[in-house]
Amino acid sequence: MPTIFSKIIAGEIPCFKVAENQHFIAFLDISPLKKGHVLVVPKVEVDYLFDLEASEYTGLMNFAKRVAVAIKSSIECNRVSMHVIGLEVAHAHIHLIPINTPNDCNFSNEKLKLSKQEFEGIAAKIAANFK
Amino acid sequence: MPTIFSKIIAGEIPCFKVAENQHFIAFLDISPLKKGHVLVVPKVEVDYLFDLEASEYTGLMNFAKRVAVAIKSSIECNRVSMHVIGLEVAHAHIHLIPINTPNDCNFSNEKLKLSKQEFEGIAAKIAANFK
Repeated sequence: MPTIFSKIIAGEIPCFKVAENQHFIAFLDISPLKKGHVLVVPKVEVDYLFDLEASEYTGLMNFAKRVAVAIKSSIECNRVSMHVIGLEVAHAHIHLIPINTPNDCNFSNEKLKLSKQEFEGIAAKIAANFK
Repeated sequence: MPTIFSKIIAGEIPCFKVAENQHFIAFLDISPLKKGHVLVVPKVEVDYLFDLEASEYTGLMNFAKRVAVAIKSSIECNRVSMHVIGLEVAHAHIHLIPINTPNDCNFSNEKLKLSKQEFEGIAAKIAANFK
């Protein structure tokens, strides 16, 4: 079923994109827990991660790894954490969050408010490091 | 570097195992957020998930998917969430948690205290559903 992610994928809603190929897209979460908090999304409309067809699932995980490496090269952090919760938007998505402490990826924390310019700067940096 | 997970993998410390093959093992988290909270661990001693060699990484993700399907078949839940944080034990591991609300996988929640018998019952059920 179409969600806001389908509109982002179709380019009908803008996003701060960091990576994209034929099957997957990665863009900044606009309510980030930390600067460099990215969502990695398959283009196919599947709600539940583990319902993805085998090659889509493996492809998504490998794409997410490349994005995580780009985040770590761009944002000062100990490591990049990975989370798939998926009860809020009914389209599978992976959260990648640069963290220094376990509490940095606590989803009950207050989200950051960043300016358009800050989002653009972060997205450009991660995109430049995406290999 | 060896951590408590290496001792579990070697069988030197017992665990409530739900699945195992040559490369990966899955067992119950003994401080679970929910009943059926499982850790999926590669046998190779690598601290950071995204440092795993390509085939180990893909293999781990595919193994985790099979464990997640078994958890969903065993525990009443809306879906199984996935988390890799990794700042507490320096050996890569994936948390799989059966959830009904986003807060069910909030790591700052108090952990459940279960009896050995309860852990054994849950592990046996998930192991029986592991395909």
